Amino acid sequence: MKRLIVTAVAVFGALASLSAHAQFQKPEDAIKYRQSVFTVMANHLGRVGAMAQGRVPFDAKAAADNAAIVVTMSKLPFAAFVEGSDKGAPTRAKPEVWKDQAKVKDLAGKMQAEAEKFEAAAKTGNLDNIKTALGSLGQACKACHDDYRAEKYSSN
Amino acid sequence: MKRLIVTAVAVFGALASLSAHAQFQKPEDAIKYRQSVFTVMANHLGRVGAMAQGRVPFDAKAAADNAAIVVTMSKLPFAAFVEGSDKGAPTRAKPEVWKDQAKVKDLAGKMQAEAEKFEAAAKTGNLDNIKTALGSLGQACKACHDDYRAEKYSSN
Repeated sequence: MKRLIVTAVAVFGALASLSAHAQFQKPEDAIKYRQSVFTVMANHLGRVGAMAQGRVPFDAKAAADNAAIVVTMSKLPFAAFVEGSDKGAPTRAKPEVWKDQAKVKDLAGKMQAEAEKFEAAAKTGNLDNIKTALGSLGQACKACHDDYRAEKYSSN
Repeated sequence: MKRLIVTAVAVFGALASLSAHAQFQKPEDAIKYRQSVFTVMANHLGRVGAMAQGRVPFDAKAAADNAAIVVTMSKLPFAAFVEGSDKGAPTRAKPEVWKDQAKVKDLAGKMQAEAEKFEAAAKTGNLDNIKTALGSLGQACKACHDDYRAEKYSSN
């Protein structure tokens, strides 16, 4: 029985790394992917931010559509901080991302929860609700950036 | 009445360009955004492609989740081919993108329709359905790439 469990763990481990390998063949692929996700996320967050700041007219439908994209994106990047992808392409991810995995996971979860609340607020069509939720989401983004995102890209 | 319509058109035009301006403050922002969208789209398409090719085990739930992301992404990049964003950052978009706007729009629409069919196929959980739909979607991607995507990035 013990041998069976050991075998099962080995097989699942192999599948998991095969899967990760298929998703990101090289560290630079993982870096490019997670940066792309953050770019798309920031853009759609920014579109609602522009409404919140009065720089563009408030459009409830557009705000809700953008918030839905933010939620979709919020779920994607963290699986791409794979082991070894601290280098391979210019990145702002600090080495601490890989040292403090439990803390990063916690901060990621909090951001994802705020993104969901932001989407719910956007669906109300009430700009004040949206502004409040946007502020909380921004704080949740910042909480991770403060400790785990460098000012400048690495040169590798 | 005529003056009112002219005024309305002028106001809507101004809002539209204000909105575009807010979304992409510089041509390079538009380029970075659309490239990011294509990167995310290609990655999630690739994850299902790996299943279709037998490189990773078929996981119906993962295939459907990935296909949903592909559909979301398929709707985003074309608004970012804004006037003037043929340069400003390295891009593979050929100048013809801006000359043949009607044709590009048509090809984009066909790709988006194939993405929807791909998602529907993924939801069936049948790998053969998925393979067929994936092939059609790949052809729809290629149809645009053949004419409008350069082999190499521009140097600007």
